[in-house]
Amino acid sequence: MNFLEERIVKDGIVKPGNVLKVDSFLNHQMDIGLMEQIGKEFKRRFSDKHITKVMTIESSGIGIAAFVAKEFGVPMVFAKKSKSINIEGEMYVAEVDSFTHKNRNQVIVSRKFLGPDDHLLIIDDFLANGCALQGLISIASSAGATIEGLGIVIEKGFQIGGNVIRNLGYHLESLAIVDAMDAETGTITFRPQPDRTAEATYDI
Amino acid sequence: MNFLEERIVKDGIVKPGNVLKVDSFLNHQMDIGLMEQIGKEFKRRFSDKHITKVMTIESSGIGIAAFVAKEFGVPMVFAKKSKSINIEGEMYVAEVDSFTHKNRNQVIVSRKFLGPDDHLLIIDDFLANGCALQGLISIASSAGATIEGLGIVIEKGFQIGGNVIRNLGYHLESLAIVDAMDAETGTITFRPQPDRTAEATYDI
Repeated sequence: MNFLEERIVKDGIVKPGNVLKVDSFLNHQMDIGLMEQIGKEFKRRFSDKHITKVMTIESSGIGIAAFVAKEFGVPMVFAKKSKSINIEGEMYVAEVDSFTHKNRNQVIVSRKFLGPDDHLLIIDDFLANGCALQGLISIASSAGATIEGLGIVIEKGFQIGGNVIRNLGYHLESLAIVDAMDAETGTITFRPQPDRTAEATYDI
Repeated sequence: MNFLEERIVKDGIVKPGNVLKVDSFLNHQMDIGLMEQIGKEFKRRFSDKHITKVMTIESSGIGIAAFVAKEFGVPMVFAKKSKSINIEGEMYVAEVDSFTHKNRNQVIVSRKFLGPDDHLLIIDDFLANGCALQGLISIASSAGATIEGLGIVIEKGFQIGGNVIRNLGYHLESLAIVDAMDAETGTITFRPQPDRTAEATYDI
């Protein structure tokens, strides 16, 4: 297991309905040492890419994306969820379905902060059906920016989002891919990753 | 001017209605180097305090609070805004008015992540009327936690929030206190801070 899979096994809680609670270290309370480790791991996985900006979506992506941006030495921009239509031509807009809240939001990014010269690394905490990522990809396309890659902390491999993004030809890296969860036994099955065979050491 | 006041003068935009836009470096696009500097400055200002946890509120407080928590070597927890009443006795809840969105939100923190042993540093990006901070103070009180201090990046000194918090006896540190803004001329007047004796007005 890599450092993140180990942490999920240690502190994650499997709930009925394929819910994985990681709120003790990732998306409510944040373990800052882990955030730094995640930042370094994405830097390693996308080390061959020229990144000019990290993009994410509020809220729980922000802390993670900030530490990824720190590693690349670039700014971070986070898309905002908005119910109000107060655009004034100043914003890129995408429509995003929310699985958690069962509604539809506008996601907006100011035109000031994205353009054709940007080479983006898109970061988020979870990937399930992929709606949020699709919204961010749509915004990047509107801006004419280049998407160099997408980095996800936890992918639910049994949902469609990851396949859709990979089928579209994007370089998607998920630090942990959960292929199955069992709420009764509390077991989690992780998909094998390329570097699983060799042991990897990270200086943090 | 301190580093933050200098950045506000350089990149902030004064809009009619006492609006100060700092979205190019603080609350939409984030300058990560500046976040690190802010983290270190709060560490300096609260260096005599024993802090066990940094608390903030989503969304724009998250990135800042994460770098403050990094300096103190402690976890960060962010309160979530929730419209749904789905509490199940697991959450501390406060009601908060939103000035920006003209509505009323519930702000929630899981009981798992706050308790009587916690010594909190509460962090947010803006302080105006103080509703968000009051909600966080209310949650801390519900948890029986000790509030060691509150750190704000930009305080609107001409609104009531800062005075209320200080009158309540809390140790509040704001890195920049804006006492006046003029959208026509673009000038900003900062309140003197301990390391600067005279009030100063700057054209931006």
